[in-house]
Amino acid sequence: MAHIKLNNEELPGIRGLLDFRPETAKPLLALAETLLRGPSGLTSGEREIIAASVSYWNQCHFCHTSHAAAAAAHLQTGLNLIDDIKAGLPNTPVSDKLRALLNVAHQVQKGGKNVTDEDIAAAREAGATDQEIHDTVLIAAAFCMFNRYVDGLGTWAPQPNEAYKEMGERMAFVGYGK
Amino acid sequence: MAHIKLNNEELPGIRGLLDFRPETAKPLLALAETLLRGPSGLTSGEREIIAASVSYWNQCHFCHTSHAAAAAAHLQTGLNLIDDIKAGLPNTPVSDKLRALLNVAHQVQKGGKNVTDEDIAAAREAGATDQEIHDTVLIAAAFCMFNRYVDGLGTWAPQPNEAYKEMGERMAFVGYGK
Repeated sequence: MAHIKLNNEELPGIRGLLDFRPETAKPLLALAETLLRGPSGLTSGEREIIAASVSYWNQCHFCHTSHAAAAAAHLQTGLNLIDDIKAGLPNTPVSDKLRALLNVAHQVQKGGKNVTDEDIAAAREAGATDQEIHDTVLIAAAFCMFNRYVDGLGTWAPQPNEAYKEMGERMAFVGYGK
Repeated sequence: MAHIKLNNEELPGIRGLLDFRPETAKPLLALAETLLRGPSGLTSGEREIIAASVSYWNQCHFCHTSHAAAAAAHLQTGLNLIDDIKAGLPNTPVSDKLRALLNVAHQVQKGGKNVTDEDIAAAREAGATDQEIHDTVLIAAAFCMFNRYVDGLGTWAPQPNEAYKEMGERMAFVGYGK
């Protein structure tokens, strides 16, 4: 049970929180929509992989599994991608650019000051533009917020990967608007 | 120098980043405005103290000092409040409710799963409502994002407290709209 009394206890993860406080839901959803589906040099599939990886490093089951399912929907990989993200993507074809950006995201997850000139240089060498580096840092930072919001208020989350299939498709193709 | 080439290198902290990417600036500013100046059981001064404390724990000099200066503007304390927040507010009259919510915020800063039933019960016992607990968790989570965004992209920040006086007054009384 969540730490606070929600309007609708049946909604898992962030969904119950968005329903509880529509004033803050509005900019949070607009941010997710812009970061993950707005114009960017990175595809939505790549951005959802970054979001899902950061959420896994933060041990947020709901955010990890739902955003990995959204990545699977974008990339048409099947739900195996969820566990492959947990393992560091050994079985998914991933560009050198995305691998270098995932390293930047991992540094951001640990703390902003952890990002070094070398991390940025490696991303740039693998072909990342300044805007793609910017977007990666902000996605990683934003999921450090979403993960803490979801777990800090003690929300519940379905366990099995299959429970996130439809949610991931909705996030990928309908989006984060209300 | 920042890790990426900004449009305007003269703007410190998050300001150069907002100028670089207006698409993401819009929901980020709307979120800050809602969280820190929108309707809430907590005063804006209390919410800025939470934001500044979390930023200090994350060692983000720009966010800590600017939001502590905004708190000082709201509470008319003078800029001594900035260093008092660093020290855990020994010299500022702070309600038991705010102390208990600052403890919740500190747990969120470490990680969402760190918040315990006991932390929440202590806040409730000190008079915090469910919405105030919600807002505290989301402010703390959001500053884990803002801090990582500002430091993860290596932005610069003025050092002395006095350099933040006007900025804090602007944040407090004009707000976070563009």
